[in-house]
Amino acid sequence: MPQHSPRDLPEGDPFGAAALPYGIFTTPDAPDRPRVGVRYGAYVLDAAAAAAAHGSPHAPLLARPTLNALMAAGRPTWQAVRAEIRTWLDGSEDHFHPLDEVTLHLPFEVADYVDFYASEHHASNVGRIFRPGAEPLTPNWKHLPIGYHGRAGTIVVSGTDVVRPQGQRKAPADEAPTFGPSLRLDIEAEVGFVVGTPAPENTPVTLDGFRDHVFGVCLVNDWSARDIQAWEYVPLGPFLGKSFATSVSAWITPLEALDAARTAPPERTHALLPYLDDSTAEPGGIDLRLEVTINGEVVSRPPFSAMYWTAAQQLAHMTVNGASLRTGDFYASGTVSGPEPDQLGCLLELTAGKGPYLADGDVVTITAWAPGPDGTRVGLGEVTGRIVPARDGSGTERC
Amino acid sequence: MPQHSPRDLPEGDPFGAAALPYGIFTTPDAPDRPRVGVRYGAYVLDAAAAAAAHGSPHAPLLARPTLNALMAAGRPTWQAVRAEIRTWLDGSEDHFHPLDEVTLHLPFEVADYVDFYASEHHASNVGRIFRPGAEPLTPNWKHLPIGYHGRAGTIVVSGTDVVRPQGQRKAPADEAPTFGPSLRLDIEAEVGFVVGTPAPENTPVTLDGFRDHVFGVCLVNDWSARDIQAWEYVPLGPFLGKSFATSVSAWITPLEALDAARTAPPERTHALLPYLDDSTAEPGGIDLRLEVTINGEVVSRPPFSAMYWTAAQQLAHMTVNGASLRTGDFYASGTVSGPEPDQLGCLLELTAGKGPYLADGDVVTITAWAPGPDGTRVGLGEVTGRIVPARDGSGTERC
Repeated sequence: MPQHSPRDLPEGDPFGAAALPYGIFTTPDAPDRPRVGVRYGAYVLDAAAAAAAHGSPHAPLLARPTLNALMAAGRPTWQAVRAEIRTWLDGSEDHFHPLDEVTLHLPFEVADYVDFYASEHHASNVGRIFRPGAEPLTPNWKHLPIGYHGRAGTIVVSGTDVVRPQGQRKAPADEAPTFGPSLRLDIEAEVGFVVGTPAPENTPVTLDGFRDHVFGVCLVNDWSARDIQAWEYVPLGPFLGKSFATSVSAWITPLEALDAARTAPPERTHALLPYLDDSTAEPGGIDLRLEVTINGEVVSRPPFSAMYWTAAQQLAHMTVNGASLRTGDFYASGTVSGPEPDQLGCLLELTAGKGPYLADGDVVTITAWAPGPDGTRVGLGEVTGRIVPARDGSGTERC
Repeated sequence: MPQHSPRDLPEGDPFGAAALPYGIFTTPDAPDRPRVGVRYGAYVLDAAAAAAAHGSPHAPLLARPTLNALMAAGRPTWQAVRAEIRTWLDGSEDHFHPLDEVTLHLPFEVADYVDFYASEHHASNVGRIFRPGAEPLTPNWKHLPIGYHGRAGTIVVSGTDVVRPQGQRKAPADEAPTFGPSLRLDIEAEVGFVVGTPAPENTPVTLDGFRDHVFGVCLVNDWSARDIQAWEYVPLGPFLGKSFATSVSAWITPLEALDAARTAPPERTHALLPYLDDSTAEPGGIDLRLEVTINGEVVSRPPFSAMYWTAAQQLAHMTVNGASLRTGDFYASGTVSGPEPDQLGCLLELTAGKGPYLADGDVVTITAWAPGPDGTRVGLGEVTGRIVPARDGSGTERC
């Protein structure tokens, strides 16, 4: 039983009734029973218990060890469950647990993971650093949201330590590549989108279909080993420079909670093909204000509203070739960078490619909020991780 | 009950006791009960039924709807089950079904999918076509097995029709990209490796660990839309040009069945970092003879033994950065092309980039065999697929 009532929500708390993100939690008395929780202020509402107590028809969806069953249930169910949860907030305090007394888990089982590259500022800055002398944006950049598949199996929940990866790197002046712990370990502050409703093959999702398929939004740190990446990525793209770990926040904010934050994306400089043309669609941008801290010090405040490509365009693009969608498919925006020097989403950009990069022991935390209805704020939780030293050696230990 | 006895194995049949690949099948009388089968000649041994009849302790692993439980059980179990199956071949004919009376299903649940680029001949040929004027091999090619993550959710079993994908393309002379069905739909004849035993993060798999982690081998057709790929792939690699469908054979050949086919890979022209150096390891190549037919006509006979990078090196590379392995992780070799004009594994190479590519209605089939013990042949089944026309239109249909 909490000492303070969950109803004592501090004025301006970004985790009020306008937010209500979903997560998966366990309590010390039942560590083997992960279930759906909803964040409310500094508390977690045990949604499974509340649903059972209120005789909700959705109780079975909320007693599961991941959000996938709820995600697969579709938008009408998402709306119904969210409306029910609002009515449970005034209920028994027995169903609330202080946040610091629960353990949060990876909230959904990841199917495929796609990472995009949707910030014009980021893509231009990186192009200048990785391909000096060439046009910073490739010719395709303004015509399609560039993306690639990442490793779903190494997506971890916020709070998980990140072991410094090892790998090959070769500076242009080196004669041959060398092997060792990455010397240029970086962050990428991103926003992630979790697919709920699946789509069969050969039924592309339109821009309008975004709301029916995407369950919610989270924060992402797409850890990147720049030295490994620079040596490996031509011609087939990033691989080991990214696949060691990708951290996601423990809380998934329902898309509906971000309705008041919808905003027009930047003006399009090139005509878009019909399946991507959002000139007459509802505003596809989302006004999320990110903040990146390293060891508690703010290093950047990237604005998600500055992203050139929207999440709806990314989903339309990802499926236009006939690819199916599965519940648990997950895609991230790419590094969120704005136009200003204090709005850049990775150290590569913040240090103009010169470093310093992350040191062992560094703790990186990304938070965000969005404007909610009636002047409220909608918090997006946080994604945090600490860098721990590379494992002993040469990568030749016995498996 | 089969009309001919399964014991009437024709002389030289590549699906004799030396092969015994695993698959998942259903029979018309129990279409909702997929279970493990083993191919023997033109029959499928119902391994679940045979195991139950013989009181095998492994019966529960064989009654599952995918191979994943068996795959996860580890190499000692794989060896024990294979030895048991050999003793069941002389058993009751009730446990055999003619191949043409069963339905074969996707044999395993795919976790992450990685596609490599391991043929020097293929990479050189493609480099010349996609990047004329530049060195055909990128500087990293001889130092690491280049790979990228593909879409696990669109891996389909042999026999599944492949709908012609749609997407953006832009020829160099075009002012802007256009949208429509791919005009350059291609094949890639590959060999796939299925991970059984998982590995936790930060415990790289050594070259010697390959046998402990890889359950078996299959054939792969990595369908590729060359026009979509050419326009999208710089700088982050292939995406929609590949993610619409990847076909795999219904039969997974245990690695052990290919012991007699192990062979030395091509001579290494560059010194390799220790984690990839296979100069003192057991021979990492595998002598698989592929054959590609289109509408029944042989178009190529790619030799897998010509691959520069071995599957053991690919697995070591994939995990050297700390990435974990999951049961069901799947990786493919990349297009298998040999040095001769009739050994090329895709139409891009076979036609020197000029086409023609696949037409609607074309049926592509890849088969392979390997030398087995005592002069036998070990068949690898087949991966086949028929191209069907693109779905109506513009990619703007309602989802």
